[in-house]
Amino acid sequence: MSEKSAVLHLTEELIRRPSVTPLDEGCQQLMADRLSALGFDIESMFFEDTLNLWARRGQGKPLFCFAGHTDVVPTGPLEQWDSPPFEPEIRDGLLYGRGTADMKGSLAAMIVATERFLAKKPQLTGDIAFLITSDEEGPFINGTKRVIETLEARQEKISWCLVGEPSSTHQVGDVIKNGRRGSLTGYLKVKGVQGHVAYPHLVDNPIHKAAPALAALSTEVWDHGNAFFPATSFQISNIHAGTGATNVVPGELSLTFNFRYSTEVTAEQLQQRVLALLDQHQLNYDIDWVLNGLPFLTDRGPLVEAAAKAVRQVQGFETSLETTGGTSDGRFIAPTGAQVVELGPCNGTIHKINEHVRVADLDLLTDMYEAILWHLLT
Amino acid sequence: MSEKSAVLHLTEELIRRPSVTPLDEGCQQLMADRLSALGFDIESMFFEDTLNLWARRGQGKPLFCFAGHTDVVPTGPLEQWDSPPFEPEIRDGLLYGRGTADMKGSLAAMIVATERFLAKKPQLTGDIAFLITSDEEGPFINGTKRVIETLEARQEKISWCLVGEPSSTHQVGDVIKNGRRGSLTGYLKVKGVQGHVAYPHLVDNPIHKAAPALAALSTEVWDHGNAFFPATSFQISNIHAGTGATNVVPGELSLTFNFRYSTEVTAEQLQQRVLALLDQHQLNYDIDWVLNGLPFLTDRGPLVEAAAKAVRQVQGFETSLETTGGTSDGRFIAPTGAQVVELGPCNGTIHKINEHVRVADLDLLTDMYEAILWHLLT
Ligand SMILES: [Zn+2]
Ligand SMILES: [Zn+2]
Repeated sequence: MSEKSAVLHLTEELIRRPSVTPLDEGCQQLMADRLSALGFDIESMFFEDTLNLWARRGQGKPLFCFAGHTDVVPTGPLEQWDSPPFEPEIRDGLLYGRGTADMKGSLAAMIVATERFLAKKPQLTGDIAFLITSDEEGPFINGTKRVIETLEARQEKISWCLVGEPSSTHQVGDVIKNGRRGSLTGYLKVKGVQGHVAYPHLVDNPIHKAAPALAALSTEVWDHGNAFFPATSFQISNIHAGTGATNVVPGELSLTFNFRYSTEVTAEQLQQRVLALLDQHQLNYDIDWVLNGLPFLTDRGPLVEAAAKAVRQVQGFETSLETTGGTSDGRFIAPTGAQVVELGPCNGTIHKINEHVRVADLDLLTDMYEAILWHLLT
Repeated sequence: MSEKSAVLHLTEELIRRPSVTPLDEGCQQLMADRLSALGFDIESMFFEDTLNLWARRGQGKPLFCFAGHTDVVPTGPLEQWDSPPFEPEIRDGLLYGRGTADMKGSLAAMIVATERFLAKKPQLTGDIAFLITSDEEGPFINGTKRVIETLEARQEKISWCLVGEPSSTHQVGDVIKNGRRGSLTGYLKVKGVQGHVAYPHLVDNPIHKAAPALAALSTEVWDHGNAFFPATSFQISNIHAGTGATNVVPGELSLTFNFRYSTEVTAEQLQQRVLALLDQHQLNYDIDWVLNGLPFLTDRGPLVEAAAKAVRQVQGFETSLETTGGTSDGRFIAPTGAQVVELGPCNGTIHKINEHVRVADLDLLTDMYEAILWHLLT
């Protein structure tokens, strides 16, 4: 087995384990066995239904950490897949299977890069760790969040963290995520008085009352973003009212909305502005908030430079630093003071039928990860 | 058995027949037997699942018609009733049972009033008919609508129609309905582009797009009504969009709205104004319309005067002419050119648990119905 095929082989082994979130199905054991052979100390952290792996080599500083997840999203309708999602298959240079791009290919690249790096036995100026969870695609309660809490409690600090999320768009490495927007969800109930449409003076239609407020919320400019973040965006994702009968005015309107917000505003400011706008429209309402994640940003520095240089060396082009897209487990790691970037395969097919990754990209990604280790730890 | 108790006795006999729409359960046969004994020609009209009764005495003109329905709405949870809904029971002068107020009490009063009137053998200057259906509470497709079509086809014309719907609010006769508003329902789908909230530039949120249009629709003044009709009212009764996921912008918004409209506007005008407003807000949409009923109005004339005079004689107060409230089968009879009014018991408990009618009101209503026969036919 050549070095190049090592990453493909390990990716395939991981794909064969049907680790639909929050299941791990032996993926972490497979990784732990490989890391143990390299001198890593293995620590399994099992929280509720979720298996997590913390593996560390050395007791020194600084600490570089690969972070990722073994769980995958459900397959969707099996009959729509061109090959079974948990039986890896290569067609036209593409490796198909659930989790190939998000993110078992990255996990395999991390392991093989570390093996190759340590095989060359450099004088290390720091430690290497792996923080691997099996609930990134689920409720993210018992995964990275609790591992980080455990590390914080014993004052174990990550200096640099590379998350293997599929950050790339067209070519592997064309985008590195050096931050993520915050995510804030609101659950709003607007109250009225139910009744029959034939007696309009006896009803107070919550749909009618809410409409101007919703119009105002959806056209509000929340900020203009900044050099690292696009403007804060607001989206109503769900709205429901009505008994099903055409002649009954409902007593309540429910809706859910979500902010993806920049570092130009805080969650508290957004909440206050929403409440002010609802009050201004004289609505009678209840509202609940869930702060899904604070925004974070890793500015130019050793980690960003190492990652950008690795892309330049392997691909010959300049990467683009972005903070767009969904949340990631980076939001739990960044608040500890760690620098965090995300670098992984192209994300065009993640969470979809016929998810795949370019076989050649697995090798390129392995090369990048190894280059980052060299830049930061030698 | 005194005359006074005749109407109570017949009401109780009708209540014992559990004629939940569209069932008749022998109610019409009971009425037909009584009418046959008075010299009425009996014609049963069975359309699909619906039994209807057309009973007529005489071949002359003008034709006075009592109209009503033997079907009742479902009982709702039986355990919430203080006495079984199909076992009539009198407590504190109130007769309890499903259909007591809507409208078996009226049916009994019509029969007993006719019996008393004809027992006095007046010289009639016209005919009497009964148009009774068992689908007024259902889809109203195979009931009054089809009986009227049958009568129209053979050029049989009703001059004056008294519908026994429970028109009264506090005292029997305090309100006579001399018309009804039109009812027009719209089913609107606003189209957008579905996507993840994290990528706002790739979505087109139909909730955001629709909100200003809904605000405009719900504050629009459609007309100011007139002497007989309140202003046209618009109510959104149902609104739904969203996948349930908080982070997915839906691709479509569905909503249902209903107009109750006066004779100052037409259904076509309302449709055109809604479409113009949606277009002005540049929405991409589909819309379907259902015209539930045209408005109708019976102006002052022999029927209204006879009914108002009957209330004055029996109760000693002036009735109030109104066109408010829900639709009724009058909408199918009025377009033939007939004068139509509705006069029946108090409607505070109709369609509810523990539906009831004042026992004394059954006698008062019988007196009013008989007085109307005297005023119009002698
Ligand atoms: Zn992922
Ligand atoms: Zn009724």
